[in-house]
Amino acid sequence: MADPTLNPWENERGEASSSRSTPPQTTVEDDEDEQNTRDDDGVLAADPLDEDIPNRISFKRKQKARQGFSLPKFLSSPLSNNSRNQSPATIANSRLGQLRLNPGASDSTEAILPYLDGPGDPTGLQPQEIKDGGGLDWYVEGPGRRVGYDNLTAIDWIYEYAKERQRLRVLYSNTAGIMGYIRQIHDASQIWIVLILAGIASGVVAAFIDISSDWLADLKTGYCSNVRTGGKFYLSRSFCCFGYEELAQCKDWQLWSMALGIRSQAGAYIINYILFVIFSVLFAACASILVKNYSSFAKQSGIPEIKTVLGGFVIRHFMGAWTLITKSLGLCVAVASGLWLGKEGPLVHVACCCANLFLKLFDNLNNNEARKREALSAAAAAGISVAFASPIGGVLFSLEQLSYYFPDKTMWQSFVCAMVAAVTLQAIDPFRSGKIVLYEVTYHSGWHNFELVPFALLGIIGGIYGGLFVKLNMKVAEWRRSSTLFKGPVLEVIAVATLTALINFPITFMRAQASELVHLLFAECVDIPDDLLGLCKSGKANTGVIALLIVAALLGFLLASITFGLMVPAGIILPSMAIGALYGRAVGLVIESWQNAYPNAFPFIYCEPDKTCITPGTYAIIGAASALAGATRITVSIVVIMFELTGALTYVLPIMIAVMLSKWIGDGITKRGIYEAWIRFNGYPFLSNKDDDGSKVPDVPAAQVMTRIEDLMVITATGHAIRSLQDMLKSHSFRGFPVIDNPRDAVLLGYISRTELAYALDSALSTPRNLSPETEAYFLHQPLADPTTTLDLRPWMDHTPITLNFRASLQLTVNMFQRLGLRYVIFVDRGSLKGLLTKKDVWTVLEGAEDNPQGEDEGARGVLRSQDMPEERGLLGEDNGEGEERREGLG
Amino acid sequence: MADPTLNPWENERGEASSSRSTPPQTTVEDDEDEQNTRDDDGVLAADPLDEDIPNRISFKRKQKARQGFSLPKFLSSPLSNNSRNQSPATIANSRLGQLRLNPGASDSTEAILPYLDGPGDPTGLQPQEIKDGGGLDWYVEGPGRRVGYDNLTAIDWIYEYAKERQRLRVLYSNTAGIMGYIRQIHDASQIWIVLILAGIASGVVAAFIDISSDWLADLKTGYCSNVRTGGKFYLSRSFCCFGYEELAQCKDWQLWSMALGIRSQAGAYIINYILFVIFSVLFAACASILVKNYSSFAKQSGIPEIKTVLGGFVIRHFMGAWTLITKSLGLCVAVASGLWLGKEGPLVHVACCCANLFLKLFDNLNNNEARKREALSAAAAAGISVAFASPIGGVLFSLEQLSYYFPDKTMWQSFVCAMVAAVTLQAIDPFRSGKIVLYEVTYHSGWHNFELVPFALLGIIGGIYGGLFVKLNMKVAEWRRSSTLFKGPVLEVIAVATLTALINFPITFMRAQASELVHLLFAECVDIPDDLLGLCKSGKANTGVIALLIVAALLGFLLASITFGLMVPAGIILPSMAIGALYGRAVGLVIESWQNAYPNAFPFIYCEPDKTCITPGTYAIIGAASALAGATRITVSIVVIMFELTGALTYVLPIMIAVMLSKWIGDGITKRGIYEAWIRFNGYPFLSNKDDDGSKVPDVPAAQVMTRIEDLMVITATGHAIRSLQDMLKSHSFRGFPVIDNPRDAVLLGYISRTELAYALDSALSTPRNLSPETEAYFLHQPLADPTTTLDLRPWMDHTPITLNFRASLQLTVNMFQRLGLRYVIFVDRGSLKGLLTKKDVWTVLEGAEDNPQGEDEGARGVLRSQDMPEERGLLGEDNGEGEERREGLG
Repeated sequence: MADPTLNPWENERGEASSSRSTPPQTTVEDDEDEQNTRDDDGVLAADPLDEDIPNRISFKRKQKARQGFSLPKFLSSPLSNNSRNQSPATIANSRLGQLRLNPGASDSTEAILPYLDGPGDPTGLQPQEIKDGGGLDWYVEGPGRRVGYDNLTAIDWIYEYAKERQRLRVLYSNTAGIMGYIRQIHDASQIWIVLILAGIASGVVAAFIDISSDWLADLKTGYCSNVRTGGKFYLSRSFCCFGYEELAQCKDWQLWSMALGIRSQAGAYIINYILFVIFSVLFAACASILVKNYSSFAKQSGIPEIKTVLGGFVIRHFMGAWTLITKSLGLCVAVASGLWLGKEGPLVHVACCCANLFLKLFDNLNNNEARKREALSAAAAAGISVAFASPIGGVLFSLEQLSYYFPDKTMWQSFVCAMVAAVTLQAIDPFRSGKIVLYEVTYHSGWHNFELVPFALLGIIGGIYGGLFVKLNMKVAEWRRSSTLFKGPVLEVIAVATLTALINFPITFMRAQASELVHLLFAECVDIPDDLLGLCKSGKANTGVIALLIVAALLGFLLASITFGLMVPAGIILPSMAIGALYGRAVGLVIESWQNAYPNAFPFIYCEPDKTCITPGTYAIIGAASALAGATRITVSIVVIMFELTGALTYVLPIMIAVMLSKWIGDGITKRGIYEAWIRFNGYPFLSNKDDDGSKVPDVPAAQVMTRIEDLMVITATGHAIRSLQDMLKSHSFRGFPVIDNPRDAVLLGYISRTELAYALDSALSTPRNLSPETEAYFLHQPLADPTTTLDLRPWMDHTPITLNFRASLQLTVNMFQRLGLRYVIFVDRGSLKGLLTKKDVWTVLEGAEDNPQGEDEGARGVLRSQDMPEERGLLGEDNGEGEERREGLG
Repeated sequence: MADPTLNPWENERGEASSSRSTPPQTTVEDDEDEQNTRDDDGVLAADPLDEDIPNRISFKRKQKARQGFSLPKFLSSPLSNNSRNQSPATIANSRLGQLRLNPGASDSTEAILPYLDGPGDPTGLQPQEIKDGGGLDWYVEGPGRRVGYDNLTAIDWIYEYAKERQRLRVLYSNTAGIMGYIRQIHDASQIWIVLILAGIASGVVAAFIDISSDWLADLKTGYCSNVRTGGKFYLSRSFCCFGYEELAQCKDWQLWSMALGIRSQAGAYIINYILFVIFSVLFAACASILVKNYSSFAKQSGIPEIKTVLGGFVIRHFMGAWTLITKSLGLCVAVASGLWLGKEGPLVHVACCCANLFLKLFDNLNNNEARKREALSAAAAAGISVAFASPIGGVLFSLEQLSYYFPDKTMWQSFVCAMVAAVTLQAIDPFRSGKIVLYEVTYHSGWHNFELVPFALLGIIGGIYGGLFVKLNMKVAEWRRSSTLFKGPVLEVIAVATLTALINFPITFMRAQASELVHLLFAECVDIPDDLLGLCKSGKANTGVIALLIVAALLGFLLASITFGLMVPAGIILPSMAIGALYGRAVGLVIESWQNAYPNAFPFIYCEPDKTCITPGTYAIIGAASALAGATRITVSIVVIMFELTGALTYVLPIMIAVMLSKWIGDGITKRGIYEAWIRFNGYPFLSNKDDDGSKVPDVPAAQVMTRIEDLMVITATGHAIRSLQDMLKSHSFRGFPVIDNPRDAVLLGYISRTELAYALDSALSTPRNLSPETEAYFLHQPLADPTTTLDLRPWMDHTPITLNFRASLQLTVNMFQRLGLRYVIFVDRGSLKGLLTKKDVWTVLEGAEDNPQGEDEGARGVLRSQDMPEERGLLGEDNGEGEERREGLG
């Protein structure tokens, strides 16, 4: 362990303290005015988060701030400095004194003093460590000062929540007077304002997308030239023909062939076909160009990324205003293009963007990455709420699929946001039907026990569909990544759109918009006034319809597989539902025909004689649920969404059975649902907090997988100069460094992140301190050091990093990462550093282990692959440990 | 720190190793057959949980086992011993070799060997520690062997899940062949069998309670003597009069006065009154006697206890068969007695009892306290599901109110269980109405915006009701605890029942069963064929009804306050709903009268001219929701339950607003909802995992509140004899002891629980080892010790207890307890022991801090009070730290 390479700057110790500049006397450890312990104004002014981290070093502008460096407040304002030094202690003090945790103390001030000053005090703090400990900021002695998060790094949940608690403590400590009360109310109401605004905005955007995509989609076939009232080209077909019982009677809607005056049937068909294809491709190209030019984050569904963000990862601009605009407009044209995609998943992203925009109104929320994620979890519920008229389904979707950390209050917040969005959409009433979504349905009859057999069959089909879909879609994605067939994503979109349009037009089921198709497939025959698709034919005509349904389902499956992953806003929920509804209705029609043909066959004797026995629409909805479950592996929320769509408990049991079977069979074919597969494919550093089977984590001590001390870049507590540390930062890209006392004992003192170290060094070199690069820098109290001419880095170091005994199991380590939201864990043995595991290490081990239960090479390849992708590199927050070398060993 | 009192047995070191007996050579550390590393059969046989913890030492029979001591398998069977020694390593091995975590290893066997045997290996294990380390059971080197949990102790979540994972690993490692697959399926299906059976049982029990309590309740007023078909005394009034449009026309139901032939109206009234009171008191007394004689756990709602159990606490027999029978029968008579109580909360307990019974079918589930709690969480959902015909509401109730640890799969399990229960109840159809609960309702009209004002008013009233109810109920509970007015709980029940019956009879609203009352109050007037209660009168007659409604609400409030807490099965959900519905309907009638009187006044101009404008029934349902929210502080699940009761989104928004206001106002009056208040009142060691406001946890380093090393009972690693340790156990009641190397350095080696230490010492003294009490016992490897004549306690020690830096914040410590389900945290500084915090300590600090934000004495009293109650003492698991003295300091 006494590795001579451990501290490469040891020989620089001599020169480190040679050159000294003379900045002002106010340093971080400055401890004048210690008696100023009960200044209540000071308490408020001293909110360490407002005061100490310089305002200009915001989370968003760190790079800029580093260059155009400005005077941090704690260096310039002696007043705030003084009060800051004591204030958190004072707060703790006034609480603790009342609790009398310290039995000997009669006064609240005295209660805390032994801890602050007493040498040899019972808490066991070393005297030299607290001698100048007047400035015991909560974070300086604990987690250390922080600068902010770089893009594509993991957040520190514990720190963020501690920060928030500290903020609240300061806020609530000032309860005196009406103003204090108002301030508290104002503070508490911020999140509600954000969520209500986000809910309203989600509803409005959803309505806008509904109406405009409807119009654009109908534009592919014709336009509205209302003969009665003059041309109303901006109306969709259904609005143009509003009031007509049967669409066929509506003459206001001019097909393009009619508009162009083509009378021959064949000619009309061809003209309509050509224009359909042209419009489709045009819309798809628009969507793709929008995404390419304005915000590439607007592509696809966004759900894998949202999961990653909510799991504690920072992706800048992913939920920005440009993304919102691009995704909303892109969705309109993408949906209208007739590509096999849905707007449901992307609406979740849209809702999150809305919330994110409104979050910017309130700094308290916007500057806390953990609270931001709470708000985004809640907003995600609004997305599903408006997509399916299902506020409860939305809450459960957010809970089941998206959220990482979902405390109780988030559930209520989600619910409020989801409700507001649903009510807004209902108030706008985009379909003028009183229904929020097109495919709400009410069934007039129940089901018979024997129908459970075909329902279970639908579940099995759904599982097979889902598993194969994930497999195929991933193959296509891999091919897309490596292929050079299409020059650029726009051309690929055009190609797929052309193919889709060419297939869609001749097949009546596919020519309709997916939402309309699902609506018709779900409906009971008595509710379809004009049976455009021929779903309610009986007898022999049925056979053709069944065949067509199956063909449409198969083609839809193939088209959806190549579509999901294109550079357009695109969800997979509605296509899956449509495919499921197609094969579900097919199965329903088969059973119905069978019952019609043999009404006295065994199972059908249970049918009531004079009632409809088989409702094919119910098979469609169960098929849709099963396909959705197979593709996404969501269970509860799908059942609840379907329950809310149908509004009755009647069909919940069969839906549950189908969903369960589908999930099981899907899991058998591919381990991951489509979203998780994409997370993995993109190499997002998402550490699932679901430990379902328990066999995922290898059963080894953490010592076996940790980066050992020999392979770590470790900083010793003393013997550095600013320059040597900067050189070290230049020559190593690790995101953080454990600090030890000396290479021989390797007693762990703390951990310093790259960001904070770089910032501290930069700021020491800049005005006003203007230290020379040769200035001595240290992490341990130096009794003889002159604070004005040396750099004490202790405030930037995390003094209480989470440590584990290196003999602890990997499983326990993983649990700590999952439940506490850690970025790294340090392993020690009796106080001395043994190794380190970062979130990325854990992720790598789990991803590798999960794919590799049988010892095949595939998993290792998977791990390596994510290393090979340059754009994905470094996606994970803290990383230290000669990761590349070690992981080559892994592969 | 070099306290001479630290190790009181240090002077016993000399005699400790003097007397030696000679038991067989098979010891725990026995390491023969080291080469047996890839014996696959050995892997299976070596399931450490099946083999190593002796079967007779089950979790339930520890005390007995201690006395009637029998040969543990690992001491008797060399074969299982050998394979056990290597098997977990082999499993880990075959995984890790494939991952090639150890770069130098080409073979999977070799990959693990350095860790097992290598002196000076890169993981840094000390050579002397692993010299005889062939027997590295996963728990021996890690969390240590365990014996089981005592009654009224906290469980170790991490250990339980680790145990389960280990079990699964062994199961899945044997994937070869059909049999292995079947075994896996069988294992995975166990939980589903339990939940489906529990769901069915809950539905059946709920139906039984519905039917029988209905009949018994009606028996208070008369009996069925069906003139047409002969006496059918066993029918309730509604079944007796089935088919009659209006109950008044039904002559089959004989009032007691008619049966006794009393014609005079006054006489009939008096006779009916007397018999009503007699029956009521009789039923209540029955319920109370049942609870008193058969299972006192059946009293009250059980929800506070369920919360505590699900939070990780062991209460034996709380969910046993006797509790189930007593609670079910008790509920029937208690509900029938007309006391102001409900069956909804107790049904949750009943459902949990059902699940617990079926859990006993499968040892795998029954022996794992963590998995048991998952199943119980799921079953709790079934309770609410059958209580309110609301499966989704049940799942959310379990999630929001009850569960501590609720992973995704539990949500789906809850949902399945809740659905099965609801479907079962619907199949039984206890009311023969197709409805699961009496008060399902469908409204025919919507609401107007101006109605939001009275709806908000209802929310405010609900909050005030809830807050006052909790306050009053707690006062009554405190008075009950100290009072000697009633000799025994049965007499008290009789007194309350007499009072209730005397009040109930004259007031028509209160004479009806609460569920019937709620049904009528919720209903629209058009849906009530015969308006028995006069709710639909208009004009001046209205005033009387309104007054009566308000009087009934007030009396109900008072009666419910004295009833909840009696020695009968009793829930608070339905009474709250009834009270809310009463005042809600009153407000609705006021608004309706107002609108009737001034149809052109400002708000009412928005009413449609020819439609009903105000629906008082909707005010009742919103009132019920608000009262429920005020009393329980539940939000989401109440809204969902009400949504499922009404089946339409229409009224969700007003319900949400009312619930939210009610919760806010209720929180302003009392911090805790009724269940949390009872948890606190009973001193249950429930550590809430909700950190809502952040101001609850004092902002201090953990060092300030931890039990310091000077106050701890610490064991040094060496220098003990079996007798000295047994003496120590006798003289100290702490539940566990940190182990350090020596008093000077105090380097933490591990932690041993009292249970395990006592067991290990007892077993060493018993056959077959028969060691003498003077045998040397140690916790550190002793190279020169003879394993046959000394006692190595290392296998029983937790080598990797969770430690934190003693400078870490208390908040972080609390987070660790909450999220990881810990029992204790040990604080260290650079490896040396500084102190300890147990779950109970944390609970004490939080309970104190929470009540004491202003520094009043009350909180401290609260803390002390829970110390004073002998029956509550020691309720919390691990406790070490001279708790009494320290906490007196606290108070």
